[in-house]
Amino acid sequence: MQPISHENASPRVRAVFDDIKKTRGVEDVNNFWKYLANEPRMLAHTWASLKDVMGSGSLDPLTKELVYLAVSITNDCAYCKASHGAQARARGASEEMLAELYSVVALANMTNRLAMAYDVPVDEALKGE
Amino acid sequence: MQPISHENASPRVRAVFDDIKKTRGVEDVNNFWKYLANEPRMLAHTWASLKDVMGSGSLDPLTKELVYLAVSITNDCAYCKASHGAQARARGASEEMLAELYSVVALANMTNRLAMAYDVPVDEALKGE
Amino acid sequence: MQPISHENASPRVRAVFDDIKKTRGVEDVNNFWKYLANEPRMLAHTWASLKDVMGSGSLDPLTKELVYLAVSITNDCAYCKASHGAQARARGASEEMLAELYSVVALANMTNRLAMAYDVPVDEALKGE
Amino acid sequence: MQPISHENASPRVRAVFDDIKKTRGVEDVNNFWKYLANEPRMLAHTWASLKDVMGSGSLDPLTKELVYLAVSITNDCAYCKASHGAQARARGASEEMLAELYSVVALANMTNRLAMAYDVPVDEALKGE
Amino acid sequence: MQPISHENASPRVRAVFDDIKKTRGVEDVNNFWKYLANEPRMLAHTWASLKDVMGSGSLDPLTKELVYLAVSITNDCAYCKASHGAQARARGASEEMLAELYSVVALANMTNRLAMAYDVPVDEALKGE
Amino acid sequence: MQPISHENASPRVRAVFDDIKKTRGVEDVNNFWKYLANEPRMLAHTWASLKDVMGSGSLDPLTKELVYLAVSITNDCAYCKASHGAQARARGASEEMLAELYSVVALANMTNRLAMAYDVPVDEALKGE
Repeated sequence: MQPISHENASPRVRAVFDDIKKTRGVEDVNNFWKYLANEPRMLAHTWASLKDVMGSGSLDPLTKELVYLAVSITNDCAYCKASHGAQARARGASEEMLAELYSVVALANMTNRLAMAYDVPVDEALKGE
Repeated sequence: MQPISHENASPRVRAVFDDIKKTRGVEDVNNFWKYLANEPRMLAHTWASLKDVMGSGSLDPLTKELVYLAVSITNDCAYCKASHGAQARARGASEEMLAELYSVVALANMTNRLAMAYDVPVDEALKGE
Repeated sequence: MQPISHENASPRVRAVFDDIKKTRGVEDVNNFWKYLANEPRMLAHTWASLKDVMGSGSLDPLTKELVYLAVSITNDCAYCKASHGAQARARGASEEMLAELYSVVALANMTNRLAMAYDVPVDEALKGE
Repeated sequence: MQPISHENASPRVRAVFDDIKKTRGVEDVNNFWKYLANEPRMLAHTWASLKDVMGSGSLDPLTKELVYLAVSITNDCAYCKASHGAQARARGASEEMLAELYSVVALANMTNRLAMAYDVPVDEALKGE
Repeated sequence: MQPISHENASPRVRAVFDDIKKTRGVEDVNNFWKYLANEPRMLAHTWASLKDVMGSGSLDPLTKELVYLAVSITNDCAYCKASHGAQARARGASEEMLAELYSVVALANMTNRLAMAYDVPVDEALKGE
Repeated sequence: MQPISHENASPRVRAVFDDIKKTRGVEDVNNFWKYLANEPRMLAHTWASLKDVMGSGSLDPLTKELVYLAVSITNDCAYCKASHGAQARARGASEEMLAELYSVVALANMTNRLAMAYDVPVDEALKGE
């Protein structure tokens, strides 16, 4: 499928594009949004969810970007790693922080498989929350 | 495979158990470590890595636990979700923060698949770091 | 490993290639089959299973291709996304249908992680089938 | 985290619960929604997306449920398999159709790994859409 | 879906059950086959592939069971871990060997995510086979 | 992030590089280690674990490489497939053995999803180890 640029966008798509640009203070939207514009409903829902949940809340914005990046690494989504790596840097992540994040993600994947391999039963003290 | 308790542990395993208990200030180690003791080399390496990387560094300890939990949710590791959910709470995560984390993890998995489905090419501006 | 062309194929491999070409009405088999020919047993089993299950049955052929594509997106298999995207189009899927499929796949991955994160217990009414 | 019932729900959560019940013609919402109510924003976004995308569109509702189920099997989400299996049956899927779906999902996971193992390059004829 | 026992099986299913019993020297087939019998085509194809590929070949049978188990751990398939753990033990795997296998699987998952996180380019010397 | 060469490495990183080169009898370390050197702690832990677990033990080195490769295929880690494919060949794997391995990995991913789809309960005889 081909990306949809601002000029070729329907009014409905254009309204989402404009809100992304205004909210993020950017001149143009990323490729992700241009491709997603092939499904205007999903474009609108995805942007509405991200704007809301990734905006202010009980976790700070950088923590949320780091969590996003951790999931993207685990799924090996090339676009997502590039996009959320850039956003994490923009929100203050240093190279040292990212390298440490990579270690945590790798260790989590390692101990996940150890727990799965041994079928470790959940300790009583860890239950019930 | 069966878990190995402190009494049945070899001196090598016991030394790791003792260090975990001392470092974490707990009376006994969790099931995870007792099962992993079936492979004393891996027990030692896993503890050494976690103690080092999850200890002080450029990311704060709570952020690291949240990243760990995000990976465990994505892999659906039951033991890991229970264990790192508890550790995140112990380090100050509120229920509100965890619920927001779950949303970020879910949104990341959603947009990951959208980027994969459309095979979105990485924007020039996102390359090169 | 290198692909095996018709000329270099053993009679056993050639027989499978011929059946694929005849069944699908194509001049040559796709790269997938040429690589898989390195393991003639698996080539034969894979083709036999696909021919049988993807052929007539209780689900219509287009639905089966869409399901195949959904799995390939979730696993992010580049070759499989290209191949089954093409087959879905060949069986009548419009661009609009594919874009809607991508949304469903993305939403499924999102809600899967929400159910995993909250460890939602299965409702009584959903059990027992 | 604990599920939130209708009585304990905030007006914002209650409005979503009411819309789910009305749209689906059910007496009470499933556990999934009661747990998700711990994050009212995500509850609202998830329901809005599902209602819109899983409703009328270019793919028929049963096909969309089957795609949803295929993703849930690939991710092995226990709750999701139960929930979307039930919804597929409610929309007309016979046991025979579901058993055939399971075969397609299994074959897709098999050929996905074969394509990944051999790193099969995409055929020229499959490119460019 | 419900399992299909020998008594309730069609002649086609019964023939596969009989061949499994004879080939493996067991009194009854495992649950896996009884459930899969809901799709007689897939039952026949799965058994034919496994009998052929897991039988004699260029890799010894124990190695193949260990590989099977490694994949099942990575996918966290509870049934498959139990079934192929038992088969690996039946073919000579000691508890020590299995514990070492678990370590290799865990390390592979760890380094996989490190390579994915850093997007490590393939070394020239590793290319071209 | 950029790779760190021997010249630019800190003494701590250089010591690990030197031990890799000596242990493996190679002139230079692979890209994987040069990128990982951005996190000197993780570099040291990863190498220590791999050197220990992938060295002598109860499983022979080739079996361990094949297991490593099987996990890397299941995760579709491009770098890891190239690297551990090369190491498997270096330890004696023939092309025929690798092609058979690919079949086993594919069949495991297929039967994993069948067991997940039918939610097959574990047979009594398979429990309790």
